[in-house]
Amino acid sequence: MTPKIPDSGRFITLEGGEGAGKSTQLRALAAGLRARGLEVVETREPGGSEGAEAIRTLLLTGGADRWSPRAEALLFAAARADHIEKTIRPALARGAWVLSDRFLDSSRAYQGQGALSDSDILTLHRIGSAGFLPDRTLLLTLPEAEATGRAKARDGDAEDRIGGRASDFHRAVADAFAQFAMDEPDRVRAVDAGGTADVVTARLMDAIKDLLP
Amino acid sequence: MTPKIPDSGRFITLEGGEGAGKSTQLRALAAGLRARGLEVVETREPGGSEGAEAIRTLLLTGGADRWSPRAEALLFAAARADHIEKTIRPALARGAWVLSDRFLDSSRAYQGQGALSDSDILTLHRIGSAGFLPDRTLLLTLPEAEATGRAKARDGDAEDRIGGRASDFHRAVADAFAQFAMDEPDRVRAVDAGGTADVVTARLMDAIKDLLP
Repeated sequence: MTPKIPDSGRFITLEGGEGAGKSTQLRALAAGLRARGLEVVETREPGGSEGAEAIRTLLLTGGADRWSPRAEALLFAAARADHIEKTIRPALARGAWVLSDRFLDSSRAYQGQGALSDSDILTLHRIGSAGFLPDRTLLLTLPEAEATGRAKARDGDAEDRIGGRASDFHRAVADAFAQFAMDEPDRVRAVDAGGTADVVTARLMDAIKDLLP
Repeated sequence: MTPKIPDSGRFITLEGGEGAGKSTQLRALAAGLRARGLEVVETREPGGSEGAEAIRTLLLTGGADRWSPRAEALLFAAARADHIEKTIRPALARGAWVLSDRFLDSSRAYQGQGALSDSDILTLHRIGSAGFLPDRTLLLTLPEAEATGRAKARDGDAEDRIGGRASDFHRAVADAFAQFAMDEPDRVRAVDAGGTADVVTARLMDAIKDLLP
């Protein structure tokens, strides 16, 4: 018998504002892909590797002004470089699917609101990670009021340095994500996050079905 | 009486390979400047601010392959952005002189030997710190054999992730530093680090005398 050649791995990212249900949907999507016989690695940003998790701790602790926007963008890019090298690329190389809760587009949407241009953030990604992009980015979209309500309803919800910001900031982030979906329609797909979890999962599976083996 | 307006602060960096005497000379130079009535801030890289010291801990601990060269370069740039914003600029703004043991040129000489080009490292510095440069960089130079002997003679010398590398690497670093002095003769001054500490300190003072008030 010849050894089984693994199906080509795929890299899928989930993006969107707080309260859109990314974490819940990532688990459901992973379960659905595993039911089809695929190996699935669930990961997140910032973090997803030993070094990147250490950087995550630096990023999410301390006062809102602990890091300048520029230092913050460099730390996110460093964490992403480590995440890609140590977790994502090895998994894809063995044929696994990798699902990440946030990735580059979150840096573009969040850090891109302040001192840094989108071009600067993409340059950091080029230098740090050779511009590596997901095969598909699923953008979970909700009307702003509903997203805010969901985020506040979470048990033990403790706002961190990034989440604890004003609503005009979160509106600008949502607008930025929507722009990415318009600019790169093949990679970035907006998916309505309204309705029951099962309904949303079905929409997400539909949005990646062309990538399935 | 009108309040005294501080003399303009100056930013001086000391560079060179391990064992060239940077730390000793930085203290001596600071003492010499204080004797002239100047306020002097002594600092170092990586580090020099609360956030940058936390990044330093990430950079200098763990195995030699803990960080890829690209992740390492991003972490150095993040630490430098924080160091400049939180320590260096505020000190210069009140008229102090700032002396730093290593700065950007160390990133160029060390990280520039591997996967990253000098242009990439300068781009990270532009994005992170608007390309901020020292008023003068003092490059301490020693024949390689003498520098190695000095480094080995230190009490309790524990090689860290950066210091514990092969001699051909350190030779390439020394060549890179020498090139910077040729490329930017006004900013970067090579100073012979041979002889007694007092003699070297006198040479360093001579190399910044045009900047004194």
